[in-house]
Order: sequence, then structure tokens, then C-alpha cells
Amino acid sequence: MRRGCYIGRFQPYHNGHQRVVTAIAEEVDELVIAIGSADASHTVDNPFTAGERIMMITKSLVELDLDLVTYPVPIEDIDRNSVWVSHVESMSPDFDVAFSNNPLVIQLFEEASVAVEQFSMFNREELEGTEIREQMIKGNDWRSRVPDPVIEVIEEIDGLTRIQRVSRSDANGE
Amino acid sequence: MRRGCYIGRFQPYHNGHQRVVTAIAEEVDELVIAIGSADASHTVDNPFTAGERIMMITKSLVELDLDLVTYPVPIEDIDRNSVWVSHVESMSPDFDVAFSNNPLVIQLFEEASVAVEQFSMFNREELEGTEIREQMIKGNDWRSRVPDPVIEVIEEIDGLTRIQRVSRSDANGE
Amino acid sequence: MRRGCYIGRFQPYHNGHQRVVTAIAEEVDELVIAIGSADASHTVDNPFTAGERIMMITKSLVELDLDLVTYPVPIEDIDRNSVWVSHVESMSPDFDVAFSNNPLVIQLFEEASVAVEQFSMFNREELEGTEIREQMIKGNDWRSRVPDPVIEVIEEIDGLTRIQRVSRSDANGE
Amino acid sequence: MRRGCYIGRFQPYHNGHQRVVTAIAEEVDELVIAIGSADASHTVDNPFTAGERIMMITKSLVELDLDLVTYPVPIEDIDRNSVWVSHVESMSPDFDVAFSNNPLVIQLFEEASVAVEQFSMFNREELEGTEIREQMIKGNDWRSRVPDPVIEVIEEIDGLTRIQRVSRSDANGE
Amino acid sequence: MRRGCYIGRFQPYHNGHQRVVTAIAEEVDELVIAIGSADASHTVDNPFTAGERIMMITKSLVELDLDLVTYPVPIEDIDRNSVWVSHVESMSPDFDVAFSNNPLVIQLFEEASVAVEQFSMFNREELEGTEIREQMIKGNDWRSRVPDPVIEVIEEIDGLTRIQRVSRSDANGE
Amino acid sequence: MRRGCYIGRFQPYHNGHQRVVTAIAEEVDELVIAIGSADASHTVDNPFTAGERIMMITKSLVELDLDLVTYPVPIEDIDRNSVWVSHVESMSPDFDVAFSNNPLVIQLFEEASVAVEQFSMFNREELEGTEIREQMIKGNDWRSRVPDPVIEVIEEIDGLTRIQRVSRSDANGE
Repeated sequence: MRRGCYIGRFQPYHNGHQRVVTAIAEEVDELVIAIGSADASHTVDNPFTAGERIMMITKSLVELDLDLVTYPVPIEDIDRNSVWVSHVESMSPDFDVAFSNNPLVIQLFEEASVAVEQFSMFNREELEGTEIREQMIKGNDWRSRVPDPVIEVIEEIDGLTRIQRVSRSDANGE
Repeated sequence: MRRGCYIGRFQPYHNGHQRVVTAIAEEVDELVIAIGSADASHTVDNPFTAGERIMMITKSLVELDLDLVTYPVPIEDIDRNSVWVSHVESMSPDFDVAFSNNPLVIQLFEEASVAVEQFSMFNREELEGTEIREQMIKGNDWRSRVPDPVIEVIEEIDGLTRIQRVSRSDANGE
Repeated sequence: MRRGCYIGRFQPYHNGHQRVVTAIAEEVDELVIAIGSADASHTVDNPFTAGERIMMITKSLVELDLDLVTYPVPIEDIDRNSVWVSHVESMSPDFDVAFSNNPLVIQLFEEASVAVEQFSMFNREELEGTEIREQMIKGNDWRSRVPDPVIEVIEEIDGLTRIQRVSRSDANGE
Repeated sequence: MRRGCYIGRFQPYHNGHQRVVTAIAEEVDELVIAIGSADASHTVDNPFTAGERIMMITKSLVELDLDLVTYPVPIEDIDRNSVWVSHVESMSPDFDVAFSNNPLVIQLFEEASVAVEQFSMFNREELEGTEIREQMIKGNDWRSRVPDPVIEVIEEIDGLTRIQRVSRSDANGE
Repeated sequence: MRRGCYIGRFQPYHNGHQRVVTAIAEEVDELVIAIGSADASHTVDNPFTAGERIMMITKSLVELDLDLVTYPVPIEDIDRNSVWVSHVESMSPDFDVAFSNNPLVIQLFEEASVAVEQFSMFNREELEGTEIREQMIKGNDWRSRVPDPVIEVIEEIDGLTRIQRVSRSDANGE
Repeated sequence: MRRGCYIGRFQPYHNGHQRVVTAIAEEVDELVIAIGSADASHTVDNPFTAGERIMMITKSLVELDLDLVTYPVPIEDIDRNSVWVSHVESMSPDFDVAFSNNPLVIQLFEEASVAVEQFSMFNREELEGTEIREQMIKGNDWRSRVPDPVIEVIEEIDGLTRIQRVSRSDANGE
């Protein structure tokens, strides 16, 4: 039995994440989906709460119908890079390999002697998050870039109003 | 669809918790299992990490084979009772009813106008946790009081050595 | 113009506090009422929120009808004795003298070269807080020991149910 | 009896704030003035301590001579948007309506089902704060934009030296 | 070159600690002296600040005149056992072996695969700290149990008044 | 006996710092070297841990061979300017004068009535830190600007890989 840990912020969970999980499913039997910055919400970079992201992920995984046991786990920020790996390990079921394309995450795991694997599509799924949030703020199409259950979650909580409003707070600077 | 939220520390997850989950399964379609004091570990009252408790719960639920979608979610302490309900709500998928026998938890949810239900076996499963940890420390029988997967998790991490050692630190007082 | 700072937790604000404020009013023109442990609530030792305590104090001071400008200021715990004086000073209007009978508070102010005055009735008003909370928990008379507006605030928030419930949580130990 | 809560950082309290309070006084009997980022000071965006801001507000309100009971309450940052409303509510006397033009604040209160009202002069008083701080840093006129008691408070603490110095720290980047 | 890390709270640094350091000096070339609970002070269990403890240790080591490079390093509490080892490692020069008789410390280092050595005199130096503080509070002899420089540091800061006063706060319970 | 306190982040410790320490050695008998932002590491602005910085400083001071007792002390950020001076004082041996060219640090010490001295080479050593980190990231020469022991420490921990990697994380924004 091999267990992996896929780390991201999933703001929101989108089609790029679905592709990564599908690829990882070929390599592991179980997958922890570590939801970073779990305590952040209602900002332009982190519009959704951890609970909302758990719903997006859980419902989207059902659609994939993979032969994979998954554990979505919220990870609050600890604001201290030197203890971050221990923090993740304490919150998560034990894992054999971490999956990330984030250079800081890779560096921290490697210094702690934890195996890390990158995806071939370098940083692609990271950039997609930023773009999708910008589309939401501008009122352009974002629905085609996320799984259907994510649309449902965001509409149920009126997430568009939320991200558009907080984007105006950020711009004000005060 | 009705979703509940069962709140506990699960140190460790034991047969009393299994009975409660089985009873709750009659009432809801989905159940968040909120693992309180998720950031605490390696103490007499909180020997196991959140990750270890997620494993205990997930594997034990498989044994129950209930018709119930479950979400085990670690909840770090926020050390401020007045914001605790908002904190739980932000980390958890939305729920319709909370399940708890803890008087403080009941009070906080009621003040926040969240529905709470108690179990008939008042406080029984709470006390069981304390007793089981005492048995572990003394080296007496505890295995008969927890599901088999919990025994496996605790043995894999050598949890007995851990709780016995930290119990000597507490006694030293320094 | 001389301004004082009277420091307490005011859980709840009671007749002893009223007597102290009346005495202090002879000595200063303005008085900061620093509400310690402002972030604590819903425990046996700290049942009431800072907001509730501000209400108790403000309404009770109206009854005294003193010639005294007052500033009730919530002070969150900072959990680090060595910076506590700076913390209080940053949250409070500037003051010339602190009033307290608490030996730790006296020690910290004196080390920081801030003048401190004690009241003649040593520790009396501190003990009164503990006793009043015990009476509340047991359902005995406490109303005769607090100003009328405090009774109103506590009844409006159903404070008796709150303190009685949380006292049962503490007793459980878990 | 109707109580409102006006939320701002008041860095510093200025004529725009005076106009807002005067307008709010038509609508409520009592007003909590919630001083946000109370723990911040000695930065370009937050030059003044909470205690200094309480003094500015209290003395300026005397000048207005309104028929309004006011409660200036420092609110420390809690750095977690999802619990911020509960945090404010625990620190403040109970209120019926919040006043703010900040889109994030409006969004958070609305999600928590708390009534919020905006002022007609959208964001005007927010921008004024930034401009006044810039004038202070550059040594241009700022005195005409704040109530007289604010000038007194800032001069007493030599606030111009403070903000000018910290502005040079920020520019250094290190 | 072999570097060790000796972990304690050193409240105060006493003759037992001197004996341990002398013994460790036989085994390592360099020694980190990690001062735990560095952020605690002015309590019965932690009367002295980290700075005061650094002075006690540095001056006492001079008296020993060992052939040993030493690094006294304050370690603030992080209140999360699962990340404590990473925290110590980030604050301290790299070390090959940790020295401690505290069962929790031993457990945490062993789980992190860091070598730990115990001293033969089990717990003796720990207990001595508690006893010395009790003697200080009661006004009995404590001077014979600490190196001369520790007496000087404590007298210079009037440490007896401090610990005696805070001991009365603890007793009051409020 | 006169003791000073030199405050910096030392990311990394470089030739400019060596010159400052050499100059300060003319003025004091003992010098606390307060390592600010001790809890930060693995970022572009703060690449090295406090422990690594202690090593850089201690080994570089040996090379200077000054007649000066030194105490390198890590100071974690406390994120609250108004209590920062008390925080530093609690972590550090008592000092008579602080040395800094940082305007915020100067302002905070002066408000707390602590003597501060600036160096003649205004801000030079601050800027040097930023430039050296940029050279490291770009792979240009940085070795000529730091003492030899700093080169050894950075190479031993493979610090170039670290700072280059984390610089890519920062650029990604996510």
C-alpha cells in the first residue's frame, strides 16, 4: 500500500487539479489532499473557506470515480517555514510521497528527507487558480474551467459576490 | 439531504464512538467528524496526533459499513470560546445539526443558534476516553474497548511507549 | 489632570468594584477601567465576554453618578508577563497611576517604573468574584452582591445557564 | 433603544469620521466605535496605538456635543476573516446595526446575518486617512483635516516624528 | 567535531546543571544550551526571563573553565508537541546529540530520529529546580545550591521579591 | 562595564556587519547580537534559520579576534511594535545602549527611553544584505562580500539551492 499527499490551496478546486489527481491515482493507493492556508478565506487569493473547499473536492472526486481512497485534510498556516513539514505530518495520515510543483514546498520536504514528486505540467495548475479568480472578479467565464460540483458549491454560497466584494477592499488599500 | 457534525477529541477513537456514529447514521445522510484539539498531541490527555486520529476513524468506519458519507476534519484549538463556533463552521462542510454531550459545546452552539442534539448515553463516551488512556498508561487491558483498526494504528506508532513516557513528564511537574 | 488605570477581570463587575471606583474617584479626574482577559469567556473563571463586561461597567457607573470621566477598555491576554505592561499601555489612554491589589500586576508595573497603588481592603474584591461565581453555579443568592444593572445584563444573556453549563464541562475534565 | 457599531481604523480620527458620527447620531441612541487593528502601531498605515486613538476619539466627540452614548472599543486583529464577526461581537456591547463602507466588512457581516448600513459618501472617509498620513510624512498641511483634539494628541506624543521615521523604515525594505 | 544540545528551563541555573555540563564536556566539543520556555517569566515555575537566564549560565560557565564552546540559546514555547523538535532545530546550531532526562523531550527527539542521551542522576537536576524555587519563596537557604554568579544575578534584579510576590498571585487563584 | 545590543536580521551576516561590530568593540565591553526575525527562514528576505545565523556570527567573530564578550541571541518576531522593546529586553542580557540604523528600531527604543546609537555608514550594511541575496539568487559573486565562515555555513547547508528555489515560489505568487 502506497499513500501520497497532494498539497495545494484549491482556491478553487479546478480541472487542472482533477487532471493531477487522475495522474496520481496511477501511482498510489491512497491520497491525502492537503488543503493549505485552511484558515484563510474571504480574500482575493483565498476566497473560500476550508469547509467549502472540502465540499468542492469531495464532490468532484465522486465524478472522477477513481479507484483511490482520498482524505481531504485542512492544514492551517503555521507561518514558520522551518516547522511546516512537521505540522503537515502531524495533521495528515502518514504518507510515502508528497506531490507538489511549488518550489518552496519541494525545498521544505527535501530538507526534511521526505520524497517529493513534481507533475509534468509545471506550475500549470497553480497559474490556473489565479486566472480563474480573476475571471470571477471580472464576471467573465470561469465555469468551463472547474468541475460541475465546484460551480454548484460556489453558487450555493454566492461566491461570486464574495470574491468581487473583497477584491474592492483590497484595491482600496485601507 | 441532512448533514450532521459529531464533535470530539477521539483520544483514542473507541467503541463508544462507534456506537454513537451508528446511532447518528439513522438520522443523517452525511456526517462531519470534527476532531477537536487537532494541534495537541504527545500529552496524557491528547496522546495522538490529528493524522493518527484520522486513520483510526477512517479505518474503523469501514468496519461499520454504514450507509453514511463521512468527513473526518481536524479542528485546531482556537483558545477563544466566543469565536469557536465560527471557527468550526469555517473548517467544516456546512451542517444542519451538531451532536455533542459536552455542556460547553452545547452552550456555544446554542448561543450561535445552531441546533445541537445530545446522545442518550450521557457523557458515557467521554469518560471512556479517560479510562482507556489510564489503562494504556498502567499497561492494563484497553484493546477490548476500541475497534481493531485502532489497535493496529496505536501499535504501528508504538503509542503505548509514547503515552507511558509523557505520563511520567506530567508527573514530574517540570 | 490626573488619570488612573484600574485593572481587573470584572467577572462579573460587583459591589466591591463599585466601592473601589468610588474611592479612586477621590484621587483622579479620569479613570481607565482595564478589562483583563478580554478574550476569555464561557469558562467558570471567565464566564462573560468583554462586551458584556463593558455593558455591566458602563451601566453601573451611571448609577454611581461620580464626577469622573471613565474609559472601559478591553485588554486581551498576551500570555507573556515580560511584555504585559507595554501591551496595557498601548491599548489604554496614558495614565499616571495604576490601581491593583494583584501581586503579579504590582510586580510587573513596578519593574516597569509605573506607579501602583493598592486599596486598603486587601484582595477583598478579588475574592468576591470567585464567591459570586460559585453562588451563580449553585443557584444561591448572588444578586445582592452586584449593582442592579449587572443583574439586568446577566439575565438578558441568560448568564446563569451559561456558567452552570460550563461548570459541568470543567468538572468532566475532558 | 437602538445601538450601532461604527468600524474603522481611525489612523488618525479625522473630520470625515466626525461627519459620519454626526450622521449616525440621527439613527441610533448609542454607538460603539470599534477601533480596528488595535494591536497595530508605529507603521505607515497604522501609526497610532489603540490608546492614542481612544484619546483622539473621546476628546473629539466631546466637541461634537451629540445626544449619543458612545463606546470606543479597541479590536485587535484576529487574522482570520471567517471568525472576525464573532470576534467583534465578543468585544463589543451588543449592537443592532453595523456601519461601514468597507466591502470586506460588509460581506462578513452580511454572511453572519448582521445588518450593515453604508454611508452616502462612499469611501470618502477611508481615502481621507491615507491622504492625511501622506501629508504628515511629507510635512504638508494635515491639521485642517482633523478635529483640534486630534492635533493636540498627535503633538503631545510627537506623532509627526514617529510617522516620518517609520516611513523611512518601510522604504528601506529591510 | 561533535556538538551536543542540553535542554532545560534553568529556573534558575543551579549546581546540578553545573555537574551535568561538566559531565557532558567529556563527550562533546561544543554544547548548545537550549533555554526552554524562554518567553515565560514572572511565574512561580518560571520566575526569570530568558535574558536573565542567559546571564546566569554564561557567568557560571566561566567559573567552570571547561574546554568547551557553548551557545546559550533561548527557545520560546511553541505549544505544539508535534513540531517542537523542528522548532528547536531551527533556533539552534546543528547538533549531533541531545541531552535530557525529561521523558517527553526524549520521546519527541526519538520520534524525530534524533539521538538523545540521559544523565545517570535521573531527574535529580529537575527536582532541584522546584526545591530551590520553594526555598526562595519561603525565604530559606537557596544560595548554597547555585553557583555564585547566579546569586549575583538574582540579587541584582531583586529576584526574591519577584518570586515571592508572584507566588501570592498564584495562590489567590484570580 | 558597558554592554551594547546590536540588532539586525543578518540574512546573511556579511562584511558590513563585521565592520560595525569592530567599531562597536571600541565602545563597549560586552555585546548582545540580537538576531531579529529569528522565526523566519526559507524566504527571499529571510533565507536562513536563526540557528544557521548563530553559526555564521559565532564563527565570523572568532576571525575578528576582538577583546569583546558577545552574546548572539535569536529574537522571534512578536508582530506588535508597541511591545517589541519589552520583548527584546526580556530575551537579552541587560544592555546600556542599542546600536541600529533602522528608523523604526530607533523610534521604538527612543519612545521606551533606551539609548540608541547609529553608525556613521548610514544604512549601508542594511542595503548590503539585499544586494547579497540578489547575487545569490542570480548566481553572481557574493562570496567576496561575506566572511569566510559564512561561505562555509551556506555551502554546508546548500543555501544557494534554497534561496534560488524559494525565489521562484515568491515570483509565482501562489
